[in-house]
Amino acid sequence: MSIYNFCAGPAMLPPEVTEALRADLLDWRGLGRSVLEISHRTSAYQELRERTEANLRRLLGLGPAYTVLLLQGGASGQFAMLPYNFLREGDCADYLVRGHWGAKAARQAARVGRVRTLADPEAGWDPAAVYAHVTTNETIDGTRLPENFPRPVGPLCADMSSDILAAPRDYTRYDFLYAGAQKNLGVAGLAVVAAEHEFLSRARRNLPAAFCYLEHVRADGLYHTPNAFAVDALFHMTEWLLAQGLETVWARNARKAAKLYAELDRSAFWRPLAPKGERSLTNVVFRLPSATLEAEFLVQAEAQGLVALRGHRALGGLRASLYNAFPEKGVDALVAFMRDFERSHG
Amino acid sequence: MSIYNFCAGPAMLPPEVTEALRADLLDWRGLGRSVLEISHRTSAYQELRERTEANLRRLLGLGPAYTVLLLQGGASGQFAMLPYNFLREGDCADYLVRGHWGAKAARQAARVGRVRTLADPEAGWDPAAVYAHVTTNETIDGTRLPENFPRPVGPLCADMSSDILAAPRDYTRYDFLYAGAQKNLGVAGLAVVAAEHEFLSRARRNLPAAFCYLEHVRADGLYHTPNAFAVDALFHMTEWLLAQGLETVWARNARKAAKLYAELDRSAFWRPLAPKGERSLTNVVFRLPSATLEAEFLVQAEAQGLVALRGHRALGGLRASLYNAFPEKGVDALVAFMRDFERSHG
Repeated sequence: MSIYNFCAGPAMLPPEVTEALRADLLDWRGLGRSVLEISHRTSAYQELRERTEANLRRLLGLGPAYTVLLLQGGASGQFAMLPYNFLREGDCADYLVRGHWGAKAARQAARVGRVRTLADPEAGWDPAAVYAHVTTNETIDGTRLPENFPRPVGPLCADMSSDILAAPRDYTRYDFLYAGAQKNLGVAGLAVVAAEHEFLSRARRNLPAAFCYLEHVRADGLYHTPNAFAVDALFHMTEWLLAQGLETVWARNARKAAKLYAELDRSAFWRPLAPKGERSLTNVVFRLPSATLEAEFLVQAEAQGLVALRGHRALGGLRASLYNAFPEKGVDALVAFMRDFERSHG
Repeated sequence: MSIYNFCAGPAMLPPEVTEALRADLLDWRGLGRSVLEISHRTSAYQELRERTEANLRRLLGLGPAYTVLLLQGGASGQFAMLPYNFLREGDCADYLVRGHWGAKAARQAARVGRVRTLADPEAGWDPAAVYAHVTTNETIDGTRLPENFPRPVGPLCADMSSDILAAPRDYTRYDFLYAGAQKNLGVAGLAVVAAEHEFLSRARRNLPAAFCYLEHVRADGLYHTPNAFAVDALFHMTEWLLAQGLETVWARNARKAAKLYAELDRSAFWRPLAPKGERSLTNVVFRLPSATLEAEFLVQAEAQGLVALRGHRALGGLRASLYNAFPEKGVDALVAFMRDFERSHG
């Protein structure tokens, strides 16, 4: 039986990536050791990092005006680091809050300094804010921020953990973007950060180094012993994305989401939760007529290899996460199962 | 040809652990998915974490008076987190500095608050210090702190990254101990922290959660998406240590170090760097009569599968790291090679 893993993260990996990682645990690049046992001071690791960074730049369309950092700790680590580095006493940051993760980011920043939250970017950004922060996709609420939202005058930062590289986007519109790797970019334990130089140069100095962007830049990504395994996974993921072709991945993502939303819209038995204009491409959330039916749905789905469909505990219901590596036939299998389920329970 | 990897970290893993990790990338616990693709909210992950923590407690001899945390970011992350959580304005912390890593820890703490450094614990601790900090083993200098150093009156914290579980030790002598996992406990991307409750309760609250010990405790280790792969590696390492038996591992470590130091003491050709009473069990540093000979030594050693013997760039020379997973026959091979090398170059 094929297993289709709808987990919101850590997400399903392409089988090619898992196989490459298994090979790298046996003998990495003919060095007679696994990638887990290599010093980060070797040319082999240096080359891995450089190739990974080059792949990322190519995929994101970011030129030399950006610094790319591969940091430990995921996006939640960035919820703390970003304000700690940029939000000085007396300053204020603007946080757009349209879901659980935006709210979480804003709450963390408020532990560091002054934060204003707004629910709608049309309401107007504070021109004096040291930075504005948005969450491009809300995994729990199943919503995405439309691409054409009004940009603030000042620096724009974004948590893109759940939709980075999932659809076309102009990444140069952002001065600072970050993403935990475990959804679209590989495995947990790594945050991908890209920062525009001028903005980055405003960061605080002389912070404890592990928390300090400019120290990580100064140490050329080697302040910590890096999480080489997660960097290797990111390398293989970016190679996979380049080999597939982003246009192909994006077209497939659009088809995957369209198929599932079409099924949800077909019958009143399904209750999609996100407003139509804001539906997430990567996280489809819905409910059934009753909690009993939802529980039954989860049990039967799991028995058919459709796993991790339970919604986030904050919202309940069901959630299908369809990141880059999630195969289209997994959506077909889910839709077929949904039709059967509605027929027998509707 | 067997490869013996003397890297100071990330270190060599037991082949049994690498094999277990490879299997876990294929199908973890019969779930039809790899350990990289499992939600940290599942009972399977919860069980992994609980078993890992139980193994650690058993190995370290720590009872319920301690909280065990598995955090991202390694020991360097703890250089920042420890003072950020405990060193308030007006307070002072005592840092014992006897090598590169102790100095680095003290410098990081000095970015947060007031720090006094001392070179010799016999000189007397400051009874008013909010905590004292020691580094039990210096990987670069190749020295270890004798076990019977005078204990401060107040809380005692220790970076044990490079010799945790390498030899018998009373861990309950410490109120707070931490170790990056990539030397004796598995792979990079994880810090093992054990903290005594009363001390831990003095930590600051309302810090940005990723930097805040009490938030990690409150979230039961799930504030971040954890680095499940590194936790799984730690699980297999602790299982391996328990299966080997700590007494066996310790006796082997003692033999490994004794054999290498005996060779270094046998002839004036070798110049061991650490003072005899402070020699590290896990990091043996030495020089040859000239830099030219050292370069030649590295090339020839590598050709025989004895890799990563270059000393840290801060000190130069040669370094053989002999952590728990390093096999005794690797030391025999190194000693045999050294004899040949001295014969042809001495």
